[in-house]
Amino acid sequence: MPERIETPIIIINFKTYVEATAKNAVELARKAERVNRETGVAIGVAPQLTDLAAVVAAVDIPVLAQHIDSIKPGGYTGHVLAQSVKETGAVGTLINHSERQLKLSDIDQIIGIVHENGMLSIVCANNPSTSTAVATLKPDMIAIEPPELIGTGIPVSKAQPEVITGTIDLVREVNKKVIILCGAGISHGEDVAAALKLGTQGVLVASGIVKAKDPYVIIHEFADAMRVKR
Amino acid sequence: MPERIETPIIIINFKTYVEATAKNAVELARKAERVNRETGVAIGVAPQLTDLAAVVAAVDIPVLAQHIDSIKPGGYTGHVLAQSVKETGAVGTLINHSERQLKLSDIDQIIGIVHENGMLSIVCANNPSTSTAVATLKPDMIAIEPPELIGTGIPVSKAQPEVITGTIDLVREVNKKVIILCGAGISHGEDVAAALKLGTQGVLVASGIVKAKDPYVIIHEFADAMRVKR
Amino acid sequence: MPERIETPIIIINFKTYVEATAKNAVELARKAERVNRETGVAIGVAPQLTDLAAVVAAVDIPVLAQHIDSIKPGGYTGHVLAQSVKETGAVGTLINHSERQLKLSDIDQIIGIVHENGMLSIVCANNPSTSTAVATLKPDMIAIEPPELIGTGIPVSKAQPEVITGTIDLVREVNKKVIILCGAGISHGEDVAAALKLGTQGVLVASGIVKAKDPYVIIHEFADAMRVKR
Amino acid sequence: MPERIETPIIIINFKTYVEATAKNAVELARKAERVNRETGVAIGVAPQLTDLAAVVAAVDIPVLAQHIDSIKPGGYTGHVLAQSVKETGAVGTLINHSERQLKLSDIDQIIGIVHENGMLSIVCANNPSTSTAVATLKPDMIAIEPPELIGTGIPVSKAQPEVITGTIDLVREVNKKVIILCGAGISHGEDVAAALKLGTQGVLVASGIVKAKDPYVIIHEFADAMRVKR
Repeated sequence: MPERIETPIIIINFKTYVEATAKNAVELARKAERVNRETGVAIGVAPQLTDLAAVVAAVDIPVLAQHIDSIKPGGYTGHVLAQSVKETGAVGTLINHSERQLKLSDIDQIIGIVHENGMLSIVCANNPSTSTAVATLKPDMIAIEPPELIGTGIPVSKAQPEVITGTIDLVREVNKKVIILCGAGISHGEDVAAALKLGTQGVLVASGIVKAKDPYVIIHEFADAMRVKR
Repeated sequence: MPERIETPIIIINFKTYVEATAKNAVELARKAERVNRETGVAIGVAPQLTDLAAVVAAVDIPVLAQHIDSIKPGGYTGHVLAQSVKETGAVGTLINHSERQLKLSDIDQIIGIVHENGMLSIVCANNPSTSTAVATLKPDMIAIEPPELIGTGIPVSKAQPEVITGTIDLVREVNKKVIILCGAGISHGEDVAAALKLGTQGVLVASGIVKAKDPYVIIHEFADAMRVKR
Repeated sequence: MPERIETPIIIINFKTYVEATAKNAVELARKAERVNRETGVAIGVAPQLTDLAAVVAAVDIPVLAQHIDSIKPGGYTGHVLAQSVKETGAVGTLINHSERQLKLSDIDQIIGIVHENGMLSIVCANNPSTSTAVATLKPDMIAIEPPELIGTGIPVSKAQPEVITGTIDLVREVNKKVIILCGAGISHGEDVAAALKLGTQGVLVASGIVKAKDPYVIIHEFADAMRVKR
Repeated sequence: MPERIETPIIIINFKTYVEATAKNAVELARKAERVNRETGVAIGVAPQLTDLAAVVAAVDIPVLAQHIDSIKPGGYTGHVLAQSVKETGAVGTLINHSERQLKLSDIDQIIGIVHENGMLSIVCANNPSTSTAVATLKPDMIAIEPPELIGTGIPVSKAQPEVITGTIDLVREVNKKVIILCGAGISHGEDVAAALKLGTQGVLVASGIVKAKDPYVIIHEFADAMRVKR
């Protein structure tokens, strides 16, 4: 795993929001970097592929891709090569996000390719059983997305603790070391605090920050909540 | 259609070859630009998404993506947004390459999205009937890939002319204006010359140039063959 | 094209509704057959793969599959082989239904495979431009699904005629012979009548019949509307 | 798990071989049933969807589907509904065969749907790590396919034992109960014997039987090898 990744961590997924595309991606990453400098809390950003190099050049926080393909260099027009991501200076990638779900054998292969390239693998999983399955594949991080939080809009701080701890317990049965992020139900600082208190080592967030009126304020709120808990 | 695209044109698909990734992508694009300056022949390059911005910054020839997705801005983690490509300065994209085949409805939608963004659509098609179908969708360009040339390794200059002209005739029945590129069977300058003579307005090439010992020499050979035929 | 297909025709897509699975599939097909005998109007049914043989054995009307794959006999576990469908006595298949959309090259290949097996190809298309593209591939039938009717729930009889005639005109520019079905906006007999009046040669319907309190009554209503128009 | 499944078991995957389609499917299943009667060894068959009902009607051995989709009853044209398979009398299904690989979340969902319908889940996995991941999803059976046996054509009886036992050990760490089948490298009776000796509880085979000059002889050879080992 790349040395520069610390926990607890806030990872911001830029998705394909226009508020986080091109110049906006660089600006948003700078806000994340500013909070990192002010609070010391680890923050990573996952912009689109076209923006990776510019974001890496602009900030000194970990930059991640949102997806890579299970390919080696060769004739794969329109696919995402791990090496091309690594060359931008990005340090890892999201894998199997619920908006970009993959075949099991591809998740397995991509984790291998990412590690061969010295990068960080963060695999998303949509429920307790797939989280456990993913944990056996030994990624660096898992982002768990409890269906109770996605389906209902209930924030982590208001949810039954078992929603989070149940998945953590299952994951820990098969993998003691994997870093576990909470990938759903994070709207406010208190959710971040609750997620850490329940045993995760960070959060994966998107629209809550990207679509916020003032993303800097929200990132700062999240980081403050995380700082208290360290 | 973007004004800067002229025909006849050579479009070089960088695929995910390591010889055309990161710094190598920029170097290869510079060789293409040098031939363009020396010969006046239009040349476009299609590097990977991570390299688009750097290639656009380095050269003054048309730069294209290899694929975009049929999405609008929003929650589409790991997908390719047209706007993100446009913001790099790329002027268009390949669509439906044989290594990245798409659903019919997606090809249709992507052409629409590309044109809404003022970009150039180049749709690949794998045989005469799909070439005709694609032509009705009114892309700016079609790259035809006669199976006789892909399956057998026969170069255009040695093939039965009907292999090319048959597809052109079918395409022209439904679309008089679309620019037709020859997307297979191009190994030597004489193939480029033959492709133009048979009625295409350019070529789409990949390994023949990317994997060449001296890509500059090959690009120049192709451009010379094209110059004679204009 | 199989000789037993007449037009105008009502084709009933059983989808994966439980009301049209197993014994229910046979019962529903028998109701369709009864209306066919009583009215003389051609009616086809498209049950699930598991039910094809039983439905063919039970009724004397055309039976169709809902999908086949672009494969030849061989090692394709879990795929749908054209020959396996043909052996049940089914006379054709739906292709590219909006719930089972396919790559352009697969649509093209499947039409070929279906015709090689002496079966009937009915390709669905989701808008005017994809309908035109599909028409160039020379299927036996096209089921057009105007987005104005799917998106809004407006029935054909209440829609602007251009919604239907516009697509028909585009299809006829590239294919004079293909049979055109109306695949959306059919709720009542008057919609069937309107669809034929506007120039289609039949309708493709699903829940309007399958989910009806008394499917026999609705099928009869549709057939009566069609009989008047012949 | 359905009570009628015993181990050790031979499961024959009919794939989409023409030698195992329609009447040929019934004939092949009868040969399997005959060996079952003569030897007492459990044998299951997995014909194509169109042939399930006829095979169930013809033989008194377990019949399985090759694939079902992760859907509930509803509007899913061209998909495979678990209930439709169950209604044929089939007792289970293969899932995630290497020729029909699935998204992780779909494998998880399909296992759930299969169990809700009281059917048997047999998940295929292509290497040790995906086998372990699948085992955490608690299917009834796993068919392991060591890459060393698929890639090289080496039969189980000639392979390094670790190729098989290594995967079994990993699977057992996370799931003590799942039935493990050997899904590759089975060409002769001695391979069946070796597979059982190494700790699997059966074999999943296809072309070795389906394409055999006399499938009855081969099935008998396999069953004899299995009988010795019980």
